[in-house]
Amino acid sequence: MGKELRVSKIGNGTVVDHITAGRALYVLKILGITGREGRIVAIVMNVESRKIGKKDIVKVEGLRLRKEQVDKIALIAPHSTINIIEQFEVIEKYRVKVPKVLEGLIKCINPSCITNQPREPIKPVFTLYNENPLIFKCKYCGAKVEQEEIIRQLIGE
Amino acid sequence: MGKELRVSKIGNGTVVDHITAGRALYVLKILGITGREGRIVAIVMNVESRKIGKKDIVKVEGLRLRKEQVDKIALIAPHSTINIIEQFEVIEKYRVKVPKVLEGLIKCINPSCITNQPREPIKPVFTLYNENPLIFKCKYCGAKVEQEEIIRQLIGE
Repeated sequence: MGKELRVSKIGNGTVVDHITAGRALYVLKILGITGREGRIVAIVMNVESRKIGKKDIVKVEGLRLRKEQVDKIALIAPHSTINIIEQFEVIEKYRVKVPKVLEGLIKCINPSCITNQPREPIKPVFTLYNENPLIFKCKYCGAKVEQEEIIRQLIGE
Repeated sequence: MGKELRVSKIGNGTVVDHITAGRALYVLKILGITGREGRIVAIVMNVESRKIGKKDIVKVEGLRLRKEQVDKIALIAPHSTINIIEQFEVIEKYRVKVPKVLEGLIKCINPSCITNQPREPIKPVFTLYNENPLIFKCKYCGAKVEQEEIIRQLIGE
């Protein structure tokens, strides 16, 4: 125990690897995991990675991600890789991809934007403006939204 | 990766073991860990335990708990054990103990209790009324506060 913490084998589920260090709890929130669901969950934070310096990992038993969840993870931790486990084997592995367009996922930060007018039922739409650092641009008013603000909105903190 | 998630060795720090299943994130909150502090953290939830059915474990590098934190963990997960790690060895191990008296830690649920009167600077005090299920009793008005309410107040959710 003092040396290692081994996590019991997970037969089926999802591993989110190469999460930006310190953001595992954000990923957990996106996945809707509190622990009270009874699923086996393993999380490590700030461990060394050959690829990206330090990283976090989240592993959840019996969970498959929906596309919207993968998109949100891409916004929060763009280097993440998703591993799908079946019968103790990785049957699929891919890197998340920052969406080119965000529809209805976040609100515009500009209070006078048409998407923020109470009487106008216009869904906010953003297009990818810059990938690193991550910046999206409002389709309607052109306001730029940075990653920190996107995370704030997605996590609700 | 599909089979096990091994956590790199932690030389110094604290392991909170035998946490009531599903409550690891509460413990993390009590410890003030978000991940952004840069510490190595490992969490497992809902794993099998010989002692208590299922349990959670939280392991944090370079952290020693303050007495107030241990008391709060005892209120949230009364079966927890604390392991202190130094140079890769467990140098101390103890079980948390539910405090007999809570001073200023939680508020009384009775709005007319003297401790809830804005002009009276009286600190709320509770005494342990029952250990399992966990119930505390207000020293002033006798109101009984159950564990669920205590957790709610400590976690702020």
